[in-house]
Amino acid sequence: MNPDVARQVSALRETVSRLHRELTRYDLVAWTAGNVSARVPGQDLMVIKPSGVDYDDLTADTMVVCDLNGNVVDGGGSPSSDTAAHAYVYRAMPEVGGVVHTHSGYATAWAARGEAIPCWLTAQADEFGGEIPIGPFALIGGDDIGKGIVSTLSGHRSPAVLMRNHGVFTIGKDARAAVKAAVMCEDVARTAHLARSLGQPLPIAQADIDSLYDRYQNVYGQRPASG
Amino acid sequence: MNPDVARQVSALRETVSRLHRELTRYDLVAWTAGNVSARVPGQDLMVIKPSGVDYDDLTADTMVVCDLNGNVVDGGGSPSSDTAAHAYVYRAMPEVGGVVHTHSGYATAWAARGEAIPCWLTAQADEFGGEIPIGPFALIGGDDIGKGIVSTLSGHRSPAVLMRNHGVFTIGKDARAAVKAAVMCEDVARTAHLARSLGQPLPIAQADIDSLYDRYQNVYGQRPASG
Amino acid sequence: MNPDVARQVSALRETVSRLHRELTRYDLVAWTAGNVSARVPGQDLMVIKPSGVDYDDLTADTMVVCDLNGNVVDGGGSPSSDTAAHAYVYRAMPEVGGVVHTHSGYATAWAARGEAIPCWLTAQADEFGGEIPIGPFALIGGDDIGKGIVSTLSGHRSPAVLMRNHGVFTIGKDARAAVKAAVMCEDVARTAHLARSLGQPLPIAQADIDSLYDRYQNVYGQRPASG
Amino acid sequence: MNPDVARQVSALRETVSRLHRELTRYDLVAWTAGNVSARVPGQDLMVIKPSGVDYDDLTADTMVVCDLNGNVVDGGGSPSSDTAAHAYVYRAMPEVGGVVHTHSGYATAWAARGEAIPCWLTAQADEFGGEIPIGPFALIGGDDIGKGIVSTLSGHRSPAVLMRNHGVFTIGKDARAAVKAAVMCEDVARTAHLARSLGQPLPIAQADIDSLYDRYQNVYGQRPASG
Repeated sequence: MNPDVARQVSALRETVSRLHRELTRYDLVAWTAGNVSARVPGQDLMVIKPSGVDYDDLTADTMVVCDLNGNVVDGGGSPSSDTAAHAYVYRAMPEVGGVVHTHSGYATAWAARGEAIPCWLTAQADEFGGEIPIGPFALIGGDDIGKGIVSTLSGHRSPAVLMRNHGVFTIGKDARAAVKAAVMCEDVARTAHLARSLGQPLPIAQADIDSLYDRYQNVYGQRPASG
Repeated sequence: MNPDVARQVSALRETVSRLHRELTRYDLVAWTAGNVSARVPGQDLMVIKPSGVDYDDLTADTMVVCDLNGNVVDGGGSPSSDTAAHAYVYRAMPEVGGVVHTHSGYATAWAARGEAIPCWLTAQADEFGGEIPIGPFALIGGDDIGKGIVSTLSGHRSPAVLMRNHGVFTIGKDARAAVKAAVMCEDVARTAHLARSLGQPLPIAQADIDSLYDRYQNVYGQRPASG
Repeated sequence: MNPDVARQVSALRETVSRLHRELTRYDLVAWTAGNVSARVPGQDLMVIKPSGVDYDDLTADTMVVCDLNGNVVDGGGSPSSDTAAHAYVYRAMPEVGGVVHTHSGYATAWAARGEAIPCWLTAQADEFGGEIPIGPFALIGGDDIGKGIVSTLSGHRSPAVLMRNHGVFTIGKDARAAVKAAVMCEDVARTAHLARSLGQPLPIAQADIDSLYDRYQNVYGQRPASG
Repeated sequence: MNPDVARQVSALRETVSRLHRELTRYDLVAWTAGNVSARVPGQDLMVIKPSGVDYDDLTADTMVVCDLNGNVVDGGGSPSSDTAAHAYVYRAMPEVGGVVHTHSGYATAWAARGEAIPCWLTAQADEFGGEIPIGPFALIGGDDIGKGIVSTLSGHRSPAVLMRNHGVFTIGKDARAAVKAAVMCEDVARTAHLARSLGQPLPIAQADIDSLYDRYQNVYGQRPASG
């Protein structure tokens, strides 16, 4: 690794390690489930969580560097058992700089029913541009999960996919954006669940969804977008 | 700014910054969503949260001072993307000294169905004087949200409005009172949701609601009111 | 106050202040709602939370000492707005050494429907000896709430009553026992809610409830009872 | 106790004490309910939580050492009131090195209805190999609970059993594995509850469940398995 890449990798180890705290802060993960990765910009490399390490014990040093076929390039431990899915996404979607996976409860409940989350909230229109879609059932261990993520999200506004009977994968221009999408996906899934459990939520007109999404992504694109 | 106003602004920067901690403590907000503002008493100024800054990074210095048309008067960052709505409320309702906005989940679930929260709890009668009303659907980016808040809350006992498909806005004589209303709104929305989900809650007689509200607002007006 | 009583009061100020932390730890209270009190053994005195003080700011010194008619004997602030109800219980039930009041969400949801919590859990049989009963609707400001608590709990196994459309009051031999009952009441109310929301929970035979209650209260009476 | 056993016991006191923090971190327990134990490898001894001690006050020193009939061998306090059930499991299942008991809410809600948790999630297939089964109703105080656990889990893939109207018992090769099973049991119980409450979740084909379970237990058996 040349010194410039080494510096990038070193900074991303720190970033990826710290972003995992958002997964526990928002109760998106139990035990050692869930993982965040980041592409090393301009390189065929990614930084990802190690497998089976407690969240309290994650540090920059424990992160694992892999190539985009999931082979370990730097790091003592095994990479996340979901590394193949992350790697597939980076290979297929060059615009993606970060990937997150969780089994967050409300979103995964929609996934267990195989139901997309309809767009009943302006915050969902902002961040997801409409419904949050369902991806196929896929077994771990090959490229099936990666393919399911990519086929569902390619050309879709949503940065989140609910993989059937499994959980959530989110993408973003960088790891922080993917973590934000994972946090907002669970927040939206929860509110939509609560709304639906006492009756039929009101739809938002497609033109209003389009307008909200356009403004949030474009008008606000020049500066921090929310809050 | 003359020294007296500068001192007031300085104190309100601290107050508004710290009140945001109540939004995270009570899980009313995800990521950078949600915001608190305070009117500078006697001035056409307000202090409000900056846009897109992490809750952990909010300090008195990062708060933004705007005039009541939403133009930045002091502060390096952009003000909250909801600044126009806060500003509209301060212009239209001179008795209001604080405004809070959240997408807190249970309250927003009622908003997604377009249903006011009926008054099934004595704590709701105390704080809200009856049902918590629904405001119209409104797009961000102009005065529509502000107008919807003001038209719903003017002459209404409730300091909270559920904006359809969107979230909660609360008002108060100062920022702390508006934060209290936001906390209590979610608490009431949650208990009402839980009560309704297993059957039909019992109504409280209007005369009892009136009596509870009157006592809480007036008899207890001379000293701290609750707990 | 003679020195012995002063020492007792001083210790109870500390105990009562610290027990309030359990109310926030278990999310039983929002904002300044909820309160704990303790009888000063052998005296017509009680130590109770001050009104409208933030949970973070509660200290031994801020607790208020009242006689059993609710008149302040020692302490700078106003006592809890629920002081009259606590005082009534101490006057009517000499075996009671501690009282707790909360609006904890799941328990209050049962209260809003006016439904007692049926005994579907062995933990409920242990602590409550059967169902957790409903008390009457009562307005604050006189003895009505106190009377409702006492008439419901006198001769009943349960140390908790769900006051209709209002919230929970619990009693105990001391303040810690009353806090435990408040924590367990919400825990049982939540599990019973969850169980009931997907079908009909299975009843426990009355003889088994009696056996569990007897063992927990008597066999375990000689030593710490649970866990 | 010979010095080698004393060293083992000392290390297990620390391990068992610290593992209790996971029960509070994941909100699996209220007040002093819930307990973790570990078998002392190669000895007819176990280390278990004391009865009725606050979670904040648990230390290695307060843990109790018992023989496998539940008699105290070392330690000042009384062992957990569930000691007989733990001891029975260790006597009957020599491969078990750790046992955990909780009343975690979502899992206990399934137990109150006497319903096994169907396998709707890949994470459940991984960890539990299919449904999480229901055990019989059993009274505390003899061997009935232990017998119910053993008869349900012997020959079953699941390390967790939902004891009817009571709560969860989990087993593992060591205490940490049993704690993981308790955490995952509540996580799965919650997501299954949420999924079922808005419709009928989709089944996972038995061959896929078998494949997921086999991979998680065997392929990943050589190295940390999850995350």
